[in-house]
Amino acid sequence: MNKQSMLNMSRGLQKASLVFKHGKIINVYSKEIEEKDIAIHQGIIIGIGKYQGVQEIDLEGAYVAPGFIDGHVHIESSMLTPSGFAKIVVPKGTTTVIADPHEIANVSGIKGIEFMLNQSEDIPLNVYMMIPSCVPATKDENSGAIITSDDIKQLKKHKRVIGLGEVMDYPSVIEGDLDIHKKINVMKDKRIDGHAPDIIGKDLNAYTLSGIETDHECTYPTSMIERIRLGMYVLLREGSATRNTVSLLKGLKNEYLPRTLFCTDDKHPEDIRLEGHINYNVNLAIKEGIHPIDAISMATLHAANCYQLKHVGGLAPGKFADLIVFKDLNNIEPHLVYKKGKLVAKHGIPLFTHEHEIPIEVLNTVRFNDYTLHFDLPLSSHQAHVIGLVKQNIITDHLIETVDVKDHKFLYNPQKDIIKLAVIERHHLKNSMSVGLVKGFNIKHGAIAMTIAHDSHNLIIVGTSDEEMRLAALKIKELQGGIVVVKDHKVVDYLQLEISGIMTNQKESVVEQSLSRMKKMIVEMGYQIDMGDPFIALAFLALPVIPKLKLTDRGLFDVEQYKIISVSDIKKEDI
Amino acid sequence: MNKQSMLNMSRGLQKASLVFKHGKIINVYSKEIEEKDIAIHQGIIIGIGKYQGVQEIDLEGAYVAPGFIDGHVHIESSMLTPSGFAKIVVPKGTTTVIADPHEIANVSGIKGIEFMLNQSEDIPLNVYMMIPSCVPATKDENSGAIITSDDIKQLKKHKRVIGLGEVMDYPSVIEGDLDIHKKINVMKDKRIDGHAPDIIGKDLNAYTLSGIETDHECTYPTSMIERIRLGMYVLLREGSATRNTVSLLKGLKNEYLPRTLFCTDDKHPEDIRLEGHINYNVNLAIKEGIHPIDAISMATLHAANCYQLKHVGGLAPGKFADLIVFKDLNNIEPHLVYKKGKLVAKHGIPLFTHEHEIPIEVLNTVRFNDYTLHFDLPLSSHQAHVIGLVKQNIITDHLIETVDVKDHKFLYNPQKDIIKLAVIERHHLKNSMSVGLVKGFNIKHGAIAMTIAHDSHNLIIVGTSDEEMRLAALKIKELQGGIVVVKDHKVVDYLQLEISGIMTNQKESVVEQSLSRMKKMIVEMGYQIDMGDPFIALAFLALPVIPKLKLTDRGLFDVEQYKIISVSDIKKEDI
Repeated sequence: MNKQSMLNMSRGLQKASLVFKHGKIINVYSKEIEEKDIAIHQGIIIGIGKYQGVQEIDLEGAYVAPGFIDGHVHIESSMLTPSGFAKIVVPKGTTTVIADPHEIANVSGIKGIEFMLNQSEDIPLNVYMMIPSCVPATKDENSGAIITSDDIKQLKKHKRVIGLGEVMDYPSVIEGDLDIHKKINVMKDKRIDGHAPDIIGKDLNAYTLSGIETDHECTYPTSMIERIRLGMYVLLREGSATRNTVSLLKGLKNEYLPRTLFCTDDKHPEDIRLEGHINYNVNLAIKEGIHPIDAISMATLHAANCYQLKHVGGLAPGKFADLIVFKDLNNIEPHLVYKKGKLVAKHGIPLFTHEHEIPIEVLNTVRFNDYTLHFDLPLSSHQAHVIGLVKQNIITDHLIETVDVKDHKFLYNPQKDIIKLAVIERHHLKNSMSVGLVKGFNIKHGAIAMTIAHDSHNLIIVGTSDEEMRLAALKIKELQGGIVVVKDHKVVDYLQLEISGIMTNQKESVVEQSLSRMKKMIVEMGYQIDMGDPFIALAFLALPVIPKLKLTDRGLFDVEQYKIISVSDIKKEDI
Repeated sequence: MNKQSMLNMSRGLQKASLVFKHGKIINVYSKEIEEKDIAIHQGIIIGIGKYQGVQEIDLEGAYVAPGFIDGHVHIESSMLTPSGFAKIVVPKGTTTVIADPHEIANVSGIKGIEFMLNQSEDIPLNVYMMIPSCVPATKDENSGAIITSDDIKQLKKHKRVIGLGEVMDYPSVIEGDLDIHKKINVMKDKRIDGHAPDIIGKDLNAYTLSGIETDHECTYPTSMIERIRLGMYVLLREGSATRNTVSLLKGLKNEYLPRTLFCTDDKHPEDIRLEGHINYNVNLAIKEGIHPIDAISMATLHAANCYQLKHVGGLAPGKFADLIVFKDLNNIEPHLVYKKGKLVAKHGIPLFTHEHEIPIEVLNTVRFNDYTLHFDLPLSSHQAHVIGLVKQNIITDHLIETVDVKDHKFLYNPQKDIIKLAVIERHHLKNSMSVGLVKGFNIKHGAIAMTIAHDSHNLIIVGTSDEEMRLAALKIKELQGGIVVVKDHKVVDYLQLEISGIMTNQKESVVEQSLSRMKKMIVEMGYQIDMGDPFIALAFLALPVIPKLKLTDRGLFDVEQYKIISVSDIKKEDI
């Protein structure tokens, strides 16, 4: 009997299956470094002390810590499936993630969430799930699916579902909206994640009162401290676009540490490869003066405490043998990563492959009629509302610009950095599309199209000519999702994202190389790269919960007024 | 709608129902003292900040902290019902307990546990329950009931059941006994409490590996530290008989604090009144140099973390408005205690009463046939195994003594402090009883009988004459449980414990006064009070899981050999 052998090995009555020797164990419970053996059987740590093993591995005095935990991540942002994602984050030392499959849920609903659960079943990464609470994000757009409180009740039964995903619609929460409170109520015995960018004072009190227990959207230390004082856990985020770790660390006193953990939220493969994943947050914290054992505790035990995970977050009997081995305590780059006692990455290279068949439910999700495509933008005057890109940020400016008009329609003027932006409903053949204007891309010719467009993931296109925008749209349809670059009236490059239009089963290197190549091309078209990643900039132009001016398939959305407005409906007070 | 008003009050859109003003809030999350208002509605904290209330209470600069949590307690040891118990602990600042109804379970089984759950439903004390794992404690005694893994599965459904009670039979655990592992498995998604007195090394590894997550039986700092290193939580206990807090505090580094909490385990009403309850542990910790905010955190947040309690352990929106008000941060004596926003104790006096009807299932539990009572102790020689009381301890010595014999039976000799001890099965008319010898009571005449006899709670009697022991037994039967003192062949005093023979619905003052009176009487009979409480000493003489020599209804139990032996079966090596 397995239990019996396990106990016998633990008691030293028989040799353990595997023993790590001569490692310096980072003990996150006692905050000490211990020189002891770690005994393992069938992927579980069965003893810490003096053990003999059938197999013995000499760690040669290297440090050994529990695998790191990402407290909040949208795996879809890597454009990879869970196993593809695992291949890039596991070598960096992340062995557990709390994933919110919010992106695929907006396209493929429950089927999308089930896809993420199934595809993460047997990979060398523990994937726990929070069920998305806000699908769709607003009522002013067409998404691919809706997640109801009944759906949440259904999905809650899965053993890796541990709570409700970031509750983004904070006004609904504090105003007592029945629908969102029903969702919270379904999950009230689990963890409820928050998303309340720097909301403070009484509104934060009401938000916490509603059952929200975490937040990963703090940008100011004062916001973080206020949350900790109100009993919340705060996640220090370091993603591709949103980087809050260093600024929050400035306000982090030792006393606050047990209530803090790390996350990436959204991070692209290239950034993960170049910087690291949760180990990057840890290294930033150490550089900012946090003791390495504390920084490691934030990335392990504190996250396990926050999400009440029994089997990860520390090296102790009964925990998964998920461990990372590294030599420099002040700059953690694991040269060995073990998942359930198995070596899964060495010197940054993953040692596993996982071939998954992609089910039909998440394929062929790009559906629109060609006759829907009309890029004309009628204007009643030369004054127009224009979305202004903001450097390195996903918020936008709300601009009023003077533009050229011909036959009562917008006319592109190469002298001015104002081009057309279109969002086309692409889920249910609703024949819904809208056209607006954007400033800041600075491209002088061509078009960029993609089916990643937060959160509804409709088809979003910018371009200098209607023909090139149309060409990009048709190529996207042919690919059934992805990113397309058109230049000189030709499709010059693309990345297919065939899974719900936002992820691919292709190799992670294909994704990274395609993105890198296309980025270069867009820069050649005139884009200023110091504005930030052009794909992230474009992907967030459709998200109506982030200020100030956005475009959904239903029209131009003024986030401050929280309503759709007309591009050329300029009031005197706007000017 | 209630939720809506609550949110409106939280947002400051309408006055809160109740606001505490001018208090110094002990913030256990941020480890700070804050001067803010606490707003409350329907027993829940709805905001911390600047609030106006329909009712406002001026705390006049006093400290306000979350109510204290006792991490492990057998309410039955107070001999009071849950509401009687609440009356003595709530005024001391304890507003939440993790109760293990192990004692009543041994007498009345599931019905007993349900009684404790029902009786604690509407009292001003949050009573969370751990379901007893070891009923009966051993196979070498007759208890009143058995709790099986199926019973545990059934009881787990109750919303206040949060885990499995102290797993005491550590040899069975580490040896892989199927029955105990089945019980652990039933509760594996909840908390599993341990009980492993100073077990260390590989045995402790195997014990932890089995899923055990806490221990409250440490007496040495080294044991505590080893548990923390292995990922366990350690409870620092301060009960009537077992007092480990100060000794453990000597080894408590700041880094270990988050893994520690407090408990009382077993504490008598008089000790609670004189010393305090969990506030006494807190005050001891402060005296030993723990920062008051840390000591309070151990008594609140750390316990809530350990037992994953969402609504207690801190003062924050969404938590129960369980709070204590006190003036001296270095010696915490709450002058006001609020439970769910209601004043329930003032200057140590409870302001509530709870009349409960006692259900028939836990009454009339003392059943034995008079003809079972035979106190003769046949001896084959003058040498006998004798249980030796140990001063202030519940372990016993295993003595070999020379005794007087007449007609091949033990004869009491007033010159020698060796008297008869009897244990009589009193649950199911099994006609099972045994007689042994005990040294250390030093009483010169009379008898003491009680139906508190850990863990099976059979009838236990010591006495200098068979007639007086018989008289005591018959009085116990008439009372249907309790404690009886016989002197000069007369029943001179008693305390009725009509509920399962271990608790009473009488007033807490009756219990305290009776115990005090009888204790005095026993001292007059010759008992040396510096040995410890005579009732505790007697109650543990039947517990065969504590070394070295004990008596069950089946016979004299040698704990080291873990078997029943004969009183006069002396081997050469024994002498």
